[in-house]
Amino acid sequence: MKNRVITISREFGSGGRTIGKMVAESLNIPCYDAEIIQKIAQESGFSEGYIQEAGEYAPGGVLSNVFSNRAYGPTNEDYLWKIQYQIITDLAQKGPCVIVGRCADYILRDTADCLKVFIHAGLDFRAKRIVEVYGEREASPEQRLRDKDKRRAAYHRFYTDKKWGQYRNYHIALDSGVLGLERCAQIIESLY
Amino acid sequence: MKNRVITISREFGSGGRTIGKMVAESLNIPCYDAEIIQKIAQESGFSEGYIQEAGEYAPGGVLSNVFSNRAYGPTNEDYLWKIQYQIITDLAQKGPCVIVGRCADYILRDTADCLKVFIHAGLDFRAKRIVEVYGEREASPEQRLRDKDKRRAAYHRFYTDKKWGQYRNYHIALDSGVLGLERCAQIIESLY
Repeated sequence: MKNRVITISREFGSGGRTIGKMVAESLNIPCYDAEIIQKIAQESGFSEGYIQEAGEYAPGGVLSNVFSNRAYGPTNEDYLWKIQYQIITDLAQKGPCVIVGRCADYILRDTADCLKVFIHAGLDFRAKRIVEVYGEREASPEQRLRDKDKRRAAYHRFYTDKKWGQYRNYHIALDSGVLGLERCAQIIESLY
Repeated sequence: MKNRVITISREFGSGGRTIGKMVAESLNIPCYDAEIIQKIAQESGFSEGYIQEAGEYAPGGVLSNVFSNRAYGPTNEDYLWKIQYQIITDLAQKGPCVIVGRCADYILRDTADCLKVFIHAGLDFRAKRIVEVYGEREASPEQRLRDKDKRRAAYHRFYTDKKWGQYRNYHIALDSGVLGLERCAQIIESLY
């Protein structure tokens, strides 16, 4: 029998990770995010910081680097993708859970009963939030958000062949900036 | 003060209109859809059938015809757009309501307090539904759905300059095929 898994894709700064934790706590199931990174780190021998960067984002330059160097075989990113794929598959087989990011919706398409969620928010809301929550102090948080979004989209597209944020790929998409994080969490819980 | 209006954009066959009616009934507010068409018909003198076709879809050929003939001034579609714009603005000023389709989310962007909803569903679900609900008997309902979607998207893009179905343009997007029509209606009601 397939386990029920809530997968949350999200724009950077939209509060998707926070919503995932709220949902998991309320449903009393685990939420995987940093844990996955750590496990990837342990199993692969890559430094944790490198994995955090490469594990979800296409390298700088968005499209140029992500496609490079494969003439000489798989890249480091390709190895990370494989490790991550296996870990997420294993976690979902252990029991019901929430998984934030990491293309889990795609990875678990055949092996879990997924509720596929996408969280987004306006640039103003996210810019304000990354300054408050992450203490980002850059001159232009908006530019940083756009860059992060682009890299997530490029990574997602490359490994899953599906467009990140395309409504067809999600059962529910929510604007956390307008609806609020708590309300988003309540809706997701009610659907579980 | 701006009235609260629920605008529902939807893929053809996804049950968006049915969901809109369920929501309106439950909240005891009016739902506008066929009513709008009728009012357009009365005020414009166009035949009702023509308006139903031209009022929401770009003419056949998707992009070719919708951009044609403007060298000689506004087209019939442009007049319809203006009449429809005014009617929807008036309806939203009368009181809270649900408006299905007709680019109402865009039209009311400054004049109402909108909850912007998008309803979509997989092709299989919609193909089955249009045969059941509308009695469509075409050899390929899937092809008809794709054509309808394309024409809605082209119409929406031309008049609003926004991409139809793009998650950023909606507060909530729901897959009615997976979640079910009743559940979608309940979620929307809870957000009102």
